[in-house]
Amino acid sequence: MGKDWLRASATEQGRAIMAGLLDPIDQTEAYLAAAKSHPYSKRIYARITETRARSGAIAAHDRAKAELRYGILDGVAISWKDNIDSGGTLTEAGSKLLEGRVPRKDATVLARAAREGVLCLGKTHMTELAFSGLGLNPSTATPPNALDPDLAPGGSSSGAAVSVAMGIAAAAIGSDTGGSIRVPAAWNGLVGFKPTHNSLPEKGVVPLCRKFDTVGPIARTVEDCAELFALMAEDRAVDLAGANMQGRRLMVLEGVPFADAEDEPVAAFEDAVDRLARAGARIERVSSDWVAKAMPLSATLFAPEAYGIWRDQIEDAPELMWKPILERFRGGAEVSAPDYVFAWESLTRIRRKWFREVTASFDAVLVPTVPILPPNAQRLLDDDAYFVRANLLTLRNTRIGNLLNLPTVTLPTGQPGCGISIMGQTGRDRHLLRVAAGAEAALASD
Amino acid sequence: MGKDWLRASATEQGRAIMAGLLDPIDQTEAYLAAAKSHPYSKRIYARITETRARSGAIAAHDRAKAELRYGILDGVAISWKDNIDSGGTLTEAGSKLLEGRVPRKDATVLARAAREGVLCLGKTHMTELAFSGLGLNPSTATPPNALDPDLAPGGSSSGAAVSVAMGIAAAAIGSDTGGSIRVPAAWNGLVGFKPTHNSLPEKGVVPLCRKFDTVGPIARTVEDCAELFALMAEDRAVDLAGANMQGRRLMVLEGVPFADAEDEPVAAFEDAVDRLARAGARIERVSSDWVAKAMPLSATLFAPEAYGIWRDQIEDAPELMWKPILERFRGGAEVSAPDYVFAWESLTRIRRKWFREVTASFDAVLVPTVPILPPNAQRLLDDDAYFVRANLLTLRNTRIGNLLNLPTVTLPTGQPGCGISIMGQTGRDRHLLRVAAGAEAALASD
Repeated sequence: MGKDWLRASATEQGRAIMAGLLDPIDQTEAYLAAAKSHPYSKRIYARITETRARSGAIAAHDRAKAELRYGILDGVAISWKDNIDSGGTLTEAGSKLLEGRVPRKDATVLARAAREGVLCLGKTHMTELAFSGLGLNPSTATPPNALDPDLAPGGSSSGAAVSVAMGIAAAAIGSDTGGSIRVPAAWNGLVGFKPTHNSLPEKGVVPLCRKFDTVGPIARTVEDCAELFALMAEDRAVDLAGANMQGRRLMVLEGVPFADAEDEPVAAFEDAVDRLARAGARIERVSSDWVAKAMPLSATLFAPEAYGIWRDQIEDAPELMWKPILERFRGGAEVSAPDYVFAWESLTRIRRKWFREVTASFDAVLVPTVPILPPNAQRLLDDDAYFVRANLLTLRNTRIGNLLNLPTVTLPTGQPGCGISIMGQTGRDRHLLRVAAGAEAALASD
Repeated sequence: MGKDWLRASATEQGRAIMAGLLDPIDQTEAYLAAAKSHPYSKRIYARITETRARSGAIAAHDRAKAELRYGILDGVAISWKDNIDSGGTLTEAGSKLLEGRVPRKDATVLARAAREGVLCLGKTHMTELAFSGLGLNPSTATPPNALDPDLAPGGSSSGAAVSVAMGIAAAAIGSDTGGSIRVPAAWNGLVGFKPTHNSLPEKGVVPLCRKFDTVGPIARTVEDCAELFALMAEDRAVDLAGANMQGRRLMVLEGVPFADAEDEPVAAFEDAVDRLARAGARIERVSSDWVAKAMPLSATLFAPEAYGIWRDQIEDAPELMWKPILERFRGGAEVSAPDYVFAWESLTRIRRKWFREVTASFDAVLVPTVPILPPNAQRLLDDDAYFVRANLLTLRNTRIGNLLNLPTVTLPTGQPGCGISIMGQTGRDRHLLRVAAGAEAALASD
């Protein structure tokens, strides 16, 4: 019975286990077999943690038999991005710089999920140190896009998204500093959730920019994301029952998110917005000076912090890095500390202004998740200038959520490779998940 | 009866109000009269907030009559450093750059204290933007040292300490980024408490370095500090009853804190340590590599952050600033952002190491608060090189507490101008206050 369930959502699998329709051991074995025999396996999984998955499945099986399951996701097998520490197992964050690194303990989020019976099938490939949104990694492996293997998968949580989309994991945990959960989720037709910064613990996650780093789920449904988020936050489950669009006040953010956008993502987005309106949402189109003011701060904030954290290791062996990523890190070298501090001061002010202007009037803000379709992977590899431009444009809309620290869910629009992002209010992750569940239902039914 | 009570501790005054021995109106009038007629009044208070003090005193008087006092400090009149926002009243942080600045609201700590009936007598003079430990401010005013008006008062909470030492405030609230509460407290024979960073809210306090800024009390006793801290933290009072030194494990930090120290502060410190040992404390002398490693990070952390926050305002009108302070800010200009970020990474690691090594074995760590006696104020004004050297040496020992984020209390040793600092464990402010109360009792009785 395993095979049929591989592409079911994580919560659906959890309910099937509860109903005695699915056994955690069978299902885990089915995932392991599918993962190992998958033609792209080695480009998706950096390593499959077979023993850990099996021993977890046996324990979950016993609990299921004894009717002592920990919760809905007990016994469900998911993948973990390779920048999330797995105790006793290699965690290399897609970089030759970390080759052979075996952390002693699980990251807090992995330990918490494991404590609730969620299984670890393996660690997924990713962009080098998570510092690009396209998902290419010539140093280790580039996963194929699930729509078309010639296309870039999106990143940096590339293997995370593809493992779910290709049915070799029930869901995935990734990380997002500028869009690394949402881009691959959108480009592979999945739901991705970037929580508010610090609403999940970062302990044991390989850092990129501590001020923006977040961990979060990529999955088939908002409910999967909500359940995984609640487990990792050690919080109660989010009540999504009956979530709908009636009376929701949604703001379409005009301006920045549409500049230089391709037609398809915009058309898919507008069509989705129409469907949300028909389902009862009140849509308003607003542009915000604060977004335009926040965007240019990125250059002063991301690269200097990433380079500050990694400089010693990078400059010890720069030849181990892929050139475009190396250049992106080194771009931070010339920024001065007062400029960096001042940019933070400015961003803090902008966040406060945004909060005051927008939160009182809207449940959520909508943007196209990525303004372009997934580009051809080979062209990105061949043309450095194209890579740099595509990378910046790919991450532009998602980065708004990181800069303003808004929890954000991306939903598939129904058009391949096109996502719609629903950005909530800082710290109100649970409210956002409810709004997103309502939107998901509206998009599905229309 | 006012006059006799001016030099009583804040809690003593509070208890006298409770017992009907002291009336908040009489006492406030006595303080206002003393402050206004004091020969150094204009060098201590930037402004006296007469109306606010009086209306608060009347309300406190009514509550006392009705036996509805809010707490021990209801109706007690204290001074507030001029970088702590007072709504509707000038708050200029000792700088011509902020001339005419009237914040709309009280800082959170002031609002909380006021809500518990603590009165605001006025705003005290301070070093320009709080960026020096000596307490000199040719742009506004330099308070006289309470021991000898020719000596530097210590800063940056200069007026705060002097207002208490000279009996024109029952206690004071200051701020501390590198030693600005503890230096003037030690040099004026008082108790000063710098809490763990972020254990009190910084909202409404003019920033210097957001990563280190703290607010805290300067007063006559540890109990005064503990009561004021509890009010501002909106926490229950700290139980200090029976605090003593029996079995306390205290570490004298060898090495760094004694380099280039003058004889008197060291002798006063060692004498105090002997008395603590005789009172039952177990003393161990330990040097720590982590302190030696943390110290050089200061240059990369403090000035760049301060300059990042203030650069635009400073460079708009550099002529408004006193040269040595201006130079100190500008010293941050050349630091690169990755160096700044890397220094933070290093400091975070050092804090963790220190925590693991020291917290398991000791209740507190002891250092001489300032390794030198208060220097002659005129010589500091005349000789820039002397100023720079004295400023760095003055703040060196206190800065250990900021770098490692240790809550710290300085107590008078009994020798004029010489304090002993008791540094606790990060986040365990209440425990530290108990240890400090025990030490205070031991020093008083011996």
